[in-house]
Formats: sequence, C-alpha cells, structure tokens
Amino acid sequence: MAKLQSLFSMRHLLVLSLALNVSLILRMMYDSQLDLFFYKYPRQGQISNLHPQNKPRLLISSSFSNSSSSTCEDHHQPPPKNNNRVINLDHGDPRVYEAFWRETGEKTTIKIAGWQSMSYFSDVSNVCWFLEPEFAEEVVRLHRVVGNAVTEDRHLVVGTGSSQLFLAALYALSPTNSPQPISVVSASPYYSSYPSMTDYQKSGLYKWGGDADKFDISGPYIELVTSPNNPDGFVRRSVLNRSEGLLVHDLAYYWPQYTPISSPSNHDLTLFTLSKTTGHAGMRIGWALVKDKEVAKKMTKFIELNTIGVSKDSQLRAAKVLRAVSDSCKLQGGGESFFQFSHKIMTDRWKQLREAVQRSNGFFSVPTFSPSFCTFFNQNLVPHPAFVWLKCEKNVEDCESFLRGYNILTRSGTHFGVSQQYVRISMLDTDENFMHFLHRLSTINFR
Amino acid sequence: MAKLQSLFSMRHLLVLSLALNVSLILRMMYDSQLDLFFYKYPRQGQISNLHPQNKPRLLISSSFSNSSSSTCEDHHQPPPKNNNRVINLDHGDPRVYEAFWRETGEKTTIKIAGWQSMSYFSDVSNVCWFLEPEFAEEVVRLHRVVGNAVTEDRHLVVGTGSSQLFLAALYALSPTNSPQPISVVSASPYYSSYPSMTDYQKSGLYKWGGDADKFDISGPYIELVTSPNNPDGFVRRSVLNRSEGLLVHDLAYYWPQYTPISSPSNHDLTLFTLSKTTGHAGMRIGWALVKDKEVAKKMTKFIELNTIGVSKDSQLRAAKVLRAVSDSCKLQGGGESFFQFSHKIMTDRWKQLREAVQRSNGFFSVPTFSPSFCTFFNQNLVPHPAFVWLKCEKNVEDCESFLRGYNILTRSGTHFGVSQQYVRISMLDTDENFMHFLHRLSTINFR
Repeated sequence: MAKLQSLFSMRHLLVLSLALNVSLILRMMYDSQLDLFFYKYPRQGQISNLHPQNKPRLLISSSFSNSSSSTCEDHHQPPPKNNNRVINLDHGDPRVYEAFWRETGEKTTIKIAGWQSMSYFSDVSNVCWFLEPEFAEEVVRLHRVVGNAVTEDRHLVVGTGSSQLFLAALYALSPTNSPQPISVVSASPYYSSYPSMTDYQKSGLYKWGGDADKFDISGPYIELVTSPNNPDGFVRRSVLNRSEGLLVHDLAYYWPQYTPISSPSNHDLTLFTLSKTTGHAGMRIGWALVKDKEVAKKMTKFIELNTIGVSKDSQLRAAKVLRAVSDSCKLQGGGESFFQFSHKIMTDRWKQLREAVQRSNGFFSVPTFSPSFCTFFNQNLVPHPAFVWLKCEKNVEDCESFLRGYNILTRSGTHFGVSQQYVRISMLDTDENFMHFLHRLSTINFR
Repeated sequence: MAKLQSLFSMRHLLVLSLALNVSLILRMMYDSQLDLFFYKYPRQGQISNLHPQNKPRLLISSSFSNSSSSTCEDHHQPPPKNNNRVINLDHGDPRVYEAFWRETGEKTTIKIAGWQSMSYFSDVSNVCWFLEPEFAEEVVRLHRVVGNAVTEDRHLVVGTGSSQLFLAALYALSPTNSPQPISVVSASPYYSSYPSMTDYQKSGLYKWGGDADKFDISGPYIELVTSPNNPDGFVRRSVLNRSEGLLVHDLAYYWPQYTPISSPSNHDLTLFTLSKTTGHAGMRIGWALVKDKEVAKKMTKFIELNTIGVSKDSQLRAAKVLRAVSDSCKLQGGGESFFQFSHKIMTDRWKQLREAVQRSNGFFSVPTFSPSFCTFFNQNLVPHPAFVWLKCEKNVEDCESFLRGYNILTRSGTHFGVSQQYVRISMLDTDENFMHFLHRLSTINFR
C-alpha cells in the first residue's frame, strides 16, 4: 500500500484531477454535439419530445406537416373506428416511400451553401443548358442499374416534373406553321390530366383529340402512350400505327416496384418522373430521353420560355436521392435495396386489397394481371400498379359517389374517358391512410 | 502531504485513471466530429487543400463550376490583355452577389433530409396549396423590412421564377369565353421576352399587342408595367388608363440596390423574383401578390396544370436566404446589410461605367437619372439599374454588331421594340467580367 502511494506524487494527482476536469469538459462538449445532431434530425418518436423553440423551422414547415400520418410504425396501429374521417385517395401523392428515406438518414441529406447554384446556367455546352451534370449522370446510371431505358444516343432534358416535359413535348412535336393545331390522342382509359393539360392554354399548336381508339382524322397526330398505364396498370403499346403519328411515351410507372421490367425502353421521346420513381413529388423533377436533337432543343426552348430552367436545388437533391437508389441496388449481402423495399410494400398492399375486394362478393372488381419475367428481380412477377382501377359491379352506376358516401374520395372513370362505374384509387398513400381505407371498405354492407 | 495522500485510496486513483481514459476516448471522438464537420463544410480557401476523394460531389458540381469566375477577390485582379475572350453581357445572370453569400457561410447553408418535403402538398388550407408557409412568412417579412410592397389583404402565389407567374397572370386575367384573345401590351422599350413568352404557345386566350403607346384597339387588354423598367431602368406607370385595362406590375427590380424605394407598391397583381432580389437565379423562385382571390385561384390552377406546384426545396432554401437578408437589415451597429453591400457595388459599377462612357467623347450615351428620396436608406439617391441601356450615337446604326466586333455580347434594342442603335448590357455579372468589359471599352478607338 505504502509502495503504491509513493507512486503518486502531488503532480501525478494534479495531472489526474486535470484529466478528470478535461474529461468532464469534453463530455459536455461531446454531448452538446449530440444534442445539435439530434435537433437537426429528430427521429419520428423524438419529434414530439422537442420543445417548440428547439424545433428547426425546416422540420416544422415541411416534415412536420407530413410526419403526422407517415411513419413506418403506422401500420402497426389498429385502424380507428371513426368512419367520419375523410380518406382522400383521389391524388397519387407517393407518401408510401417515406419510411425508406427516413432509414437512410445522413446519407441522403443534402447541404447547399447560400452562395452555391446561383447562376441560371448549369452546362452551356449541353443542349439542355440548365441540366445539372450531376443529375444527368445519376439518371443515366439508374437506368443502367434497373435496365428500364436505353440512354445511349439520347438527349436528356430535365423538367419541373414530367408535366412540364409533357407540355414541352407537345410544343416540340407540333408543326410550326400548320393552320390547324395537331391532335393529341391517347387510348382510354387515359391519364385524367391529359385533356386539361393539353387544352387549358387554348393553344393553336395542339389540341386534345380524345380516345386514340376512336380517332379517325387523317394527317399528323401525337399519341400519348402511358405504360404501365395510369389508371389501370396495364402494359401498353401505340394503338394507332400511322406513318404521320408522333409518339410520346410516358413511362412514369415503368419501375420494378410497379411492373416487371421486360427490356430497356427504346422510344423517340420518353418521360420519367422522380415522384413515382422514389416518391419525391415535392421536388418537382422529371426527365425526358429524346432521340432527335432538334426535338430536345425545342423542348429546352419551351422550358426556357416557361420557367427559364429548372430548380438547381432540386436537381442536386434528386441526384443525391437517385445515387442512393442505385447504391442500394449494388449492396453486397444484406441491406434492402429501394426496389426490394418498395416492391415488398406494393405486393403486401395489393394482397390486402384483393382480399378486401374478394370479401365484397363480386360487388367490386379489380384488374387481374398475368405474371411475366422481370429482368431486374430475375424472376416471374405480377404487376402491382400505383393505382387500383376499381369497378362497381351490380347496381351502382356512379362508383365515385357511392364511395364518397363512405367518406372515401376517389377519381371517377369519367375523368379517364370511360364510365362512372370505374374509379381510380391511389395505392401510394401513407400506411395509415391505406389501413383506414381497407377498414372502411370492410364496413360496407354488401348484402 | 500525508494528509493529502490519505485522501486518495486505490479506488480514488482508479476512478481518476478511468477519467483519464474516458477523457482520451472522448477527445478522439470529439476530434473525429470536427474532421467530419470540416469535410462537409470546407471554406473557399480550404477547398483546394482537400484531397479529391474528400471533396463533396455537391461542391465539385455546382460551386466549383461557378467559383472560377466569381470569387470576391476577382476585382483585385488586373484586367487581362486578351481581347479575343468573348464577354457575354447579353443575359442578366446575377452573379454579382455571390461574394456576399460566401461571407454568410453556415448561416445560409440549408440541410434537407432525404425523407423531407416528399408530398405534393404544402398547405392545403391555402389558395396556393403548394406554397411553403415558411417561404410565405419570409416574403411578407422582407417586404415589411424594405417597405417596397403592401402585403396586407393579398394572396401570395409562388412560381417557378416570375416567368411562370407572368404566364399564370395572363391565363388568370384572360376572359374565359371570348372569341378573340385579349391583347397584351407594354410601353417600349419593353422586356425582350414579353412578346415570345406571350405568343410561343399560340394561345387563343391572349396574344402580344406590342407597344402600349401605339395600342389603339378598343376593348379589354392587359398592360405590363415594369418598374423600374427592364431595359432602361426608369420608374414607370401605366400609359393606358382605360376602364377595360387589366394591369400586371413586374417589380423585379424594385429593391434598394437598384432604385430608391419611394413607397410600398400597392397594385392588383404584382410580380417579384428571387433572381434579382438576392441573386439566386438557379433556385427559380418568384412570387406574386394578388388582391383578387379568384385571380389567385386561377394563377394557382395554371401552375397546377403547368408543373403541379413549385420545388419545395427551393422554396425552403429561398426562405432561408430571405430570412438572412431581413436579419442583415436589422443588425445593430457593424455588419453590412445585404442591401448596403449590393447598393455599394451597383454605385461603384455605375460610377466606373459612366467614366468609361465619358471617355468615349459622345460616341456612347447612357440614361441619366435624377435623385429621389429612398425610404429604405433614408436619403436622396440616384437609381443604379441592373442593366445599362446604351446608345451608340454618331454613325453607328447597329450598336450590337459594333460591340460584337469587340467580342462584347449585348442585346439589341430591336428585341425591346426600339432601334438597333440601343443595346442592353447586364450590370450584374461577375466582377471579373465587368472589369473585362470596362477594359475592352477602353480599347475602342473613338477618334
């Protein structure tokens, strides 16, 4: 004992006590770092514990407004008994993927300094001068990883969502000096916004021509081919095959979570959108793969006159998100890829939906799909569309009104160019809303 | 001594040595936090010291491509002798403000997690359902701070730049069931994009009607009032004052760095854009202050059909930037406000430009402005427009071609509805380009 004590002089003790102080100081500093990190990225359970003053404005305004009904724990909650709550499944707001992105944490958090991305220009050497090279690179990479589109010898045009690119395509494909606007057609049921988006400006360049199957005017036309189709989820090809036809392929849903990938799409003009790919609708980012340079130039001109380019912030954030998706597909052993995650959810939701439809004893019907080989998952799979194309059989003429009676908001078939016996229902909403919806269906008395 | 030693048993010593270990462990952990932080936020001087692998992609793609010709050191460099280098001052790319934003550093760096802002919707209770409340709040605050616009009893509509809001305004103000499109006019010299933006869709709702001063068709019309005016910088009022006239006020340049603030603007429909306010053109964010709720609804509908909303990322980043501007105006003692900084630069550039014009011995002429009281700076000031409206006097008929001969790219008066003796030259480009421009002018032989 004496021996031991002799080992420790006052100086030793001072050093040790200093070390104690230092350790306490550092402990405090390190804790404060954790607090800072915590306040910036609170996890779902933690948000409610935050004192208002500590909540970052960003979280209050954006994630907060969303978080209430979008946690990955939601589907463990028992569906509530309150049938007065309105369940809005009219829109295709892709909230279903939030859980995956919460898990990625820091990896997909973007930081943009106040002095960055200030110029109008992104790449003056590119036909699309406002295209961020980083975004372009990740789009090409993801198409290669998924195998759903040929990107070689294509011009990439970025848009404020694919809506803007749809309008840009109509502008670019319309003949310049024609006395009559060119007809824009699509086989019914067609995407409900096509007619209004085509005609709201009363353009002299193009006008809505209705159902492609009934189109009998000779001369040039633009046919919109949505595959898999919104609203019914079926794989589509052009129905009119005339020499004067110009095609726009809307492949917003040609991703592995919705439909088997048969081969890389290879068309003249193809539209994609981040909203349905990763669920980031709020970014308003879409892209077009365009074969003809002159068409790409005219589409770029349209966007220049329409909005003088596309948000750089969202292009850079989209690049980060797409990179994370491609990276997740390359994970060796363990770690779920984005498409494994999303495909699992869609499979699960469709299983539950079909069970609910079955319980209706033929009151409702939904499309049935035959399996086909998916080159991405390397197996035979059936489609799990982003929307349910529900039909009210028997004596219900107006399916949308019928479901509204149960506080379920859907979109009537009339908007898609078919009978009101049909409705389109989103399968991409939050787990909570989807469970509410299934529960609400179970309360309908079909006898 | 013995007394002191007796205070320290083996257990005390163990605790202290443990503390020493903990302190070392924490020190290491804390240091690793600092390293992480450093690599995430390298300052300008540090970037070049980073090993390529450590450079964040974002910095490589966006800031790096910009930084080459936009650092705050630029104007200390001697203007180069090379007269073959093309100086492009055709566009109004507002690179001049980058230096200010570099100084703000972390304060204006935005962080958005991968799971945030995914939904299409921002505030379903608002007429403009895609308007981020945080952005709306900062717009109102900045107008209060600057005193350049009445925001009470106004509906705020956000747009993908003010270009989209310009088109939304035409759509909203056009009579719905008129057999003829309504005429859109503006007094010349008018903003060069107005005619093409109005007519590129060949809309049946509205069509370009040319110079307002020469407009003699009776009936309803839309008059565009840009004040201060692009290209010439003069304060403007409506030139047609007929009962059937609808007014759109484009106040993109009604900010203290460009023109004295006389009073809060108070019109039916007013457009502003972040590009000219803070220099963040790449965000593509503009806003409209709208008196009539139905007009605001129709503008919102236009943006819904055009792009289904506006980038949330850019709205949130814009909120952060606008907050920094308002905060900088409230600094007590010391600390330069954004408008002090930008006003000083514009004053300096205009001084140098007028000296250069004077040296031309009447070969060139530029507008002269009389001073007026600025309620923001609380003194009499002269305007310092974002563009120079240069006239080639004497025997030069085509001023744009003449300057192109000296590798100076400008925009001819013909695009603004006047003679080609005039050109518009941007005053908002980088310090480097502006100095190149002045130097190039000095090489012209006016004898």
